[in-house]
Amino acid sequence: MTDTLQPTKVDIQPTQDLTLWLEIFETQSRYSHAIDADDIETWPSFFTEDGVYTIVSRENFDRGLPAPILHCRNQAMMRDRVIALRNANIYEEHRYRHSTPGPVIISRDGDTVTTEMSYIVVRTGQAGDAEIYSAGSYHDTLVKTDQGWRYKERKVVYDTSRVLTLLATPI
Amino acid sequence: MTDTLQPTKVDIQPTQDLTLWLEIFETQSRYSHAIDADDIETWPSFFTEDGVYTIVSRENFDRGLPAPILHCRNQAMMRDRVIALRNANIYEEHRYRHSTPGPVIISRDGDTVTTEMSYIVVRTGQAGDAEIYSAGSYHDTLVKTDQGWRYKERKVVYDTSRVLTLLATPI
Amino acid sequence: MTDTLQPTKVDIQPTQDLTLWLEIFETQSRYSHAIDADDIETWPSFFTEDGVYTIVSRENFDRGLPAPILHCRNQAMMRDRVIALRNANIYEEHRYRHSTPGPVIISRDGDTVTTEMSYIVVRTGQAGDAEIYSAGSYHDTLVKTDQGWRYKERKVVYDTSRVLTLLATPI
Repeated sequence: MTDTLQPTKVDIQPTQDLTLWLEIFETQSRYSHAIDADDIETWPSFFTEDGVYTIVSRENFDRGLPAPILHCRNQAMMRDRVIALRNANIYEEHRYRHSTPGPVIISRDGDTVTTEMSYIVVRTGQAGDAEIYSAGSYHDTLVKTDQGWRYKERKVVYDTSRVLTLLATPI
Repeated sequence: MTDTLQPTKVDIQPTQDLTLWLEIFETQSRYSHAIDADDIETWPSFFTEDGVYTIVSRENFDRGLPAPILHCRNQAMMRDRVIALRNANIYEEHRYRHSTPGPVIISRDGDTVTTEMSYIVVRTGQAGDAEIYSAGSYHDTLVKTDQGWRYKERKVVYDTSRVLTLLATPI
Repeated sequence: MTDTLQPTKVDIQPTQDLTLWLEIFETQSRYSHAIDADDIETWPSFFTEDGVYTIVSRENFDRGLPAPILHCRNQAMMRDRVIALRNANIYEEHRYRHSTPGPVIISRDGDTVTTEMSYIVVRTGQAGDAEIYSAGSYHDTLVKTDQGWRYKERKVVYDTSRVLTLLATPI
């Protein structure tokens, strides 16, 4: 009989490759800045040409249901998204500010790495009032290219459902 | 007579050991992730066997009063805490998201280092509404082990008193 | 005729000098800590003697209007500011907690570097209730000195207008 009141200890290990951690973190800093600085034209460039970007609720993610609120199957679709946002004039009305505690390296296989990271996004409207727009986690696969690390898949899983606009903005 | 209107300049120095800063920051990223990813069974493993974990209000901390809302004197007590939280089913009802501006190295003596770091924790309930659950600072003593840096003492000093549940969750 | 629906791809590059990124980030961590730990006497020391510190609204910044809510033309003025804040007893009534996604290096010319970085500041009052006090971005010029990187110019551009006090505190 196993003692259910004394679970076995969980083993943890530090990240062996601190340089990798640093590179992933620095990539995220530039990614956050692209969105926060209203420079979303740059946003698709953080992905590979065949990169996939998805925003899905925590509930659906945990149940294995798809039903994302945003799904771009490649970089071209992301560029289309940017055009749609600019035409709708929705994006410029708000300012977004990302913050994170830094990435966690889940696995590495050569030039491919999977990572996870919590995020908090604060949004300020034109009246100057701030709110927590979204809190959740990134679930990423990155590949090393000649231009540095790029997202091959970035899945945004949001806890907070303040996404009320018809046209979801990238997180 | 000293001139009270012109205080002497305060001298500051950059951290000499950037690798140490990086290691402490990366440790915090994994610590935050353990809590944020609802993987709290891993949480005690970030401490030494005799590690001490305390959550105390800013007010009591500043006055030197003990009266913590949570005090674990060793890793075994932390594992008990995890079991209690799981049995109470309180923990899973919320999602936590940490964020920090990075650690500050206060002192180093061989394989022991003391650090401080601000934190913000956002909590999202099942209704999908986010709030600032806790804001405050970590006051830590870490020791270098064969498995990387471990907390020998982690004191969480919270400014924000939204801790209303009977069973406080780790921060 | 250019295709306005397919904008040319934006080229991005990773930061070549990760050590620089690390040094700037670590400097910001200590800067945030000085304010968050109520150690604002240290705050002016993060600047060069002739360093300039400005807090300006996003609206004015975008329009190129000056009208900052706080403008210190050198370190001595910052020390005066600290004295004013201490005498007014406004500062100690609140606790501030910074958070950022990390810096972005915009340009480097020898020992001078320009950077940008989003920030979120949470403030907790004496009643223990937290709010997003300010969200915005830092626009900085730093120079390398014998005591590490110092701000030659730090411009705080805030999105969020919760700055209601007559005597603005440093961010």
